[in-house]
Amino acid sequence: MNEKDNSKKNYNGFGRSLGGKKRYYKRRNPSAAAKQAQAAPDTSIEISASAKPARSNKQTKEVRRTPIKIIPLGGLNEIGKNMTVFECCNDMFILDCGLAFPDADMPGVDIVIPDFTYIERNQDKLRGVVLTHGHEDHIGGLAYLLKKVNVPIYGTKLTLGLVEGKLREHGLSGKVNLNIIEPKKTVKMGCMAVEFIKVNHSIPDAVGMAIHTPAGIVVHTGDFKVDYSPIDGEIIDLARFGELGSRGVLALMADSTNAERPGYTHTERTVGESFDKLFKQAEGKRIIIATFSSNIHRVQQIINCAERYGRKIAVFGRSMINVINTAIELGYLNAPKGIIIDIETMNRYESEKIVLITTGSQGEPMSALTRMAMNDHKKVNITPMDFIIISATPIPGNEKYVTRVVNELMKSGAEVVYEAMYEVHVSGHACQEELKLMLALTKPKFFIPVHGEYKHLKKHADLALQMGIPKDNVIMAEIGNVIETDGNKMSVVSQVPSGRVLVDGLGVGDVGSIVLRDRKHLAQDGLIIIVIGIEKASNTVVAGPDIISRGFVYVRESEELIIEAKQILTNTLHNCSSAELKEWNTLKGKLRDALSDYIYQKTKRSPMILPIIMET
Amino acid sequence: MNEKDNSKKNYNGFGRSLGGKKRYYKRRNPSAAAKQAQAAPDTSIEISASAKPARSNKQTKEVRRTPIKIIPLGGLNEIGKNMTVFECCNDMFILDCGLAFPDADMPGVDIVIPDFTYIERNQDKLRGVVLTHGHEDHIGGLAYLLKKVNVPIYGTKLTLGLVEGKLREHGLSGKVNLNIIEPKKTVKMGCMAVEFIKVNHSIPDAVGMAIHTPAGIVVHTGDFKVDYSPIDGEIIDLARFGELGSRGVLALMADSTNAERPGYTHTERTVGESFDKLFKQAEGKRIIIATFSSNIHRVQQIINCAERYGRKIAVFGRSMINVINTAIELGYLNAPKGIIIDIETMNRYESEKIVLITTGSQGEPMSALTRMAMNDHKKVNITPMDFIIISATPIPGNEKYVTRVVNELMKSGAEVVYEAMYEVHVSGHACQEELKLMLALTKPKFFIPVHGEYKHLKKHADLALQMGIPKDNVIMAEIGNVIETDGNKMSVVSQVPSGRVLVDGLGVGDVGSIVLRDRKHLAQDGLIIIVIGIEKASNTVVAGPDIISRGFVYVRESEELIIEAKQILTNTLHNCSSAELKEWNTLKGKLRDALSDYIYQKTKRSPMILPIIMET
Repeated sequence: MNEKDNSKKNYNGFGRSLGGKKRYYKRRNPSAAAKQAQAAPDTSIEISASAKPARSNKQTKEVRRTPIKIIPLGGLNEIGKNMTVFECCNDMFILDCGLAFPDADMPGVDIVIPDFTYIERNQDKLRGVVLTHGHEDHIGGLAYLLKKVNVPIYGTKLTLGLVEGKLREHGLSGKVNLNIIEPKKTVKMGCMAVEFIKVNHSIPDAVGMAIHTPAGIVVHTGDFKVDYSPIDGEIIDLARFGELGSRGVLALMADSTNAERPGYTHTERTVGESFDKLFKQAEGKRIIIATFSSNIHRVQQIINCAERYGRKIAVFGRSMINVINTAIELGYLNAPKGIIIDIETMNRYESEKIVLITTGSQGEPMSALTRMAMNDHKKVNITPMDFIIISATPIPGNEKYVTRVVNELMKSGAEVVYEAMYEVHVSGHACQEELKLMLALTKPKFFIPVHGEYKHLKKHADLALQMGIPKDNVIMAEIGNVIETDGNKMSVVSQVPSGRVLVDGLGVGDVGSIVLRDRKHLAQDGLIIIVIGIEKASNTVVAGPDIISRGFVYVRESEELIIEAKQILTNTLHNCSSAELKEWNTLKGKLRDALSDYIYQKTKRSPMILPIIMET
Repeated sequence: MNEKDNSKKNYNGFGRSLGGKKRYYKRRNPSAAAKQAQAAPDTSIEISASAKPARSNKQTKEVRRTPIKIIPLGGLNEIGKNMTVFECCNDMFILDCGLAFPDADMPGVDIVIPDFTYIERNQDKLRGVVLTHGHEDHIGGLAYLLKKVNVPIYGTKLTLGLVEGKLREHGLSGKVNLNIIEPKKTVKMGCMAVEFIKVNHSIPDAVGMAIHTPAGIVVHTGDFKVDYSPIDGEIIDLARFGELGSRGVLALMADSTNAERPGYTHTERTVGESFDKLFKQAEGKRIIIATFSSNIHRVQQIINCAERYGRKIAVFGRSMINVINTAIELGYLNAPKGIIIDIETMNRYESEKIVLITTGSQGEPMSALTRMAMNDHKKVNITPMDFIIISATPIPGNEKYVTRVVNELMKSGAEVVYEAMYEVHVSGHACQEELKLMLALTKPKFFIPVHGEYKHLKKHADLALQMGIPKDNVIMAEIGNVIETDGNKMSVVSQVPSGRVLVDGLGVGDVGSIVLRDRKHLAQDGLIIIVIGIEKASNTVVAGPDIISRGFVYVRESEELIIEAKQILTNTLHNCSSAELKEWNTLKGKLRDALSDYIYQKTKRSPMILPIIMET
């Protein structure tokens, strides 16, 4: 292994990196699981063992190896909440633990995280979590996992810097064992070992992983693209992927996000070139640029342009401020002293000498850019003297939000650059030619497309087939599948609990299908409450029926409807025998049916109807 | 005027078409307004008068003319519900009357129509409605308008055929005066006259209009594109637009839908070429094609392909069946005898000899294709022997629905073609080069971009500026604006009532901002109902507090929360004086506040809280 010994200081001051030199550090807050992991080195295999080719051109007889299990718990047939479990003998680790954003059919839900049941049940086996990079869909579920199981976390410096921020928000700061691992280093997970391999992506410090197991090497790309001229100067370590391929890769798990797109993904540097042109064009105007807060290379290019054109930078939006601060602190952003100014001092500069960097590139309703567009921002008022660049592509589902923001900004007279034609955004994910390159380098025996909806996985699988991987060796898996391999065969052998857990406010998992069904019903046609009071002793109706509605009709303009509805209920009650008035469930059903029929006939709507009977 | 006298039979058998020859027909069901229109020919101007150039290179002094008003009531700063009023002296007519589809922030709403207040107030002036083509966003509001004012309708044959279908649904069949007007013909609207001009679009029989008024000629393109090789062989009448331009066009109102797109829109024929390739590729498989039901040229190309490849066609989806029947009846679809088969007889044919045409290209939840994808269709079961083509682009907001359908179809093993790269869809709207062509042909003095959100209108306005129209002559209008012109100047002079009216079931306008706000609140966090009974005489609580919730939490798993909440309410009631128990509004507020604080603190959610006090 071509290991350089220039390891930076570990993030928590402690950590473990296990490469050719097998160094051990004492851990400050070793959790039970971490202690186990540390106590288990003797059960581990030698990494060199895993380096034996799992497939060889001249291999004639099948060598049975200790089988491993690969269990995706998120990220397959969906976008986001990426999470995969690797298991071998008595050891288990997790690769990534992300969140997903809710769909339109999950009203009120804030975020979606994977189902951790399988992890909780097997926490005695759990040796750690390795992280590929610091995006929400790879680290956003971590805090929720850590509230259930304490486990050491391994990632690159920036990734852990961003994790640390998350942990603070969840009151977990200082309680978690964070270990910085650099690219080319390896960390042991019981009888397996995970090697970090530099990749390019839309956030610095992203890595893929080579997982050395008794059954063979499994390569997981994480999110990746190939950028031959990245902003930080570090090209994806294609050589190492190739070296692993030569030695024999048992299985490749690769990012399918852009599998539908032919060709290559453009280098991030094209965005810088566009910025340069646009800065020239914007002479005399204030510049406002919205982008993803985590795209630190993009921010670096804005800083570079600002410096070249003699502008100061003011930063807007909580997450943008947080990420920029973390990135500067950890040395991932190179900002000349004094170029970033405090928002409060912004007015001291001529507005044509300023660039605002802000969140809101997805049109998020509460973001800084949206508030600026809606004339609802305390510090920034959009005028025809603004030149606004939205440096992002709408994530599917956000198109309408982005469009609304663009329309409103334009109505204020500002120039708005938001189209793909200006090349103000490039993707962070590999397109077809890059996916083929990864397949060609790693030459895997088995292929498991990951990270994407079915259509993306399918396209990626088709690419693998075109490149000669036999159909039976391409595994189209689902979350919860237990994929087992002994180095010779690979197949789905069983199923573990998996799915989506909805987070709404502080509640984790208390919003399920019934609650969602009710929310959607209420949203669709609103609600009618029927209230009556029944005297138990005499079985007579002593109050009501009254009707209260919300979200159904504007009552003041529908008085007749409500009066008639009450009459229907009164008639229904009149026709009830004394015995029927005792059977409240039946009575409720009768009232509901009578009102529901009447309302549907009159309005063709089906509001939720809630009869409430009060005993007096 | 270059009028050909090859007029087809009028749709209702009656109608009026007024061109160079000024023919009159007796009307079968003349409404009051129509009678007025007929009685008013003497007040009308000569069309030749309006043909005087409103602008001339050598014009030296301003000629004041009778002013006209143009009042857009829909279609500006929004997609859909296109509707424009033209008014001159005592005459008024409407150009198009469309609907819009609801946004995500209008839960439960079926469709959105324009506000007709201004029309109702001025119905004595109303001479008619002219229709550019038969798409929902141009005719979908008509039935609602006709329930308020009876007015003659003028359109091309297919447009009126589709209107007739709508009227049947609304019980208006036979009650409305429908008049077929052919391209190149003119219909009089009091002192104005409307000339129909053939355009290309994604539905046959689309027209633009030249409105001849005392102030000059206003050209309205309707929805259009330039197709030099259209399926029906009729190219947009560029010559007539040019002729009008030479004589002098006062104002151009043109379709901005694709104003962001550079270049030209492809001809519909490219789709046919793609179909041909795909039919070859699909040999041995059943073919399923989803497209817009109104795209009759697309359907024609499918029929042509089916014939060439010896396949029968079965049609799925209510609107697809309706439109195809209407189109065949009126001669707009050329289907060889026996090629379209009944769904019921489908099983008699080998599935590789069949093409299914279906609705659902937008992933609409109840459409035939979606039900097929979800394994929920009675007649069609998707298998790996299916080759499916989605011949459409998702309308913004529908991307996720389409994606879900694609994923599900693929999971059944079917091949699914859905990407732009296959050219299985072309737009029906003009791109930038075509928009410039229209501006160059008509050489308008004033320009009003229409049909689009602000960003589209703005881009279109920019194109007009680039082509030399002075800034002051480009009018960026809003709905409700009264744009007045006397041939010399054009400006927004006042405002009339305008906006959106929401249709939910049978209710038109009874869902307003309060109802929507409540629906969104209910969808977000659900509902908690507090029920207590108070004996009026003694002012004591005799029942409750009880709590009922819907869409808030799964109650069985949150018992503790509910018990504590009840305790909070009991304590609040205990702390109320006898006087406070009398003031129910205050009491309700106290209960709501106490529960709301507790719930937010425990869950960070804000459900709707409804206290109900029952008097006993």
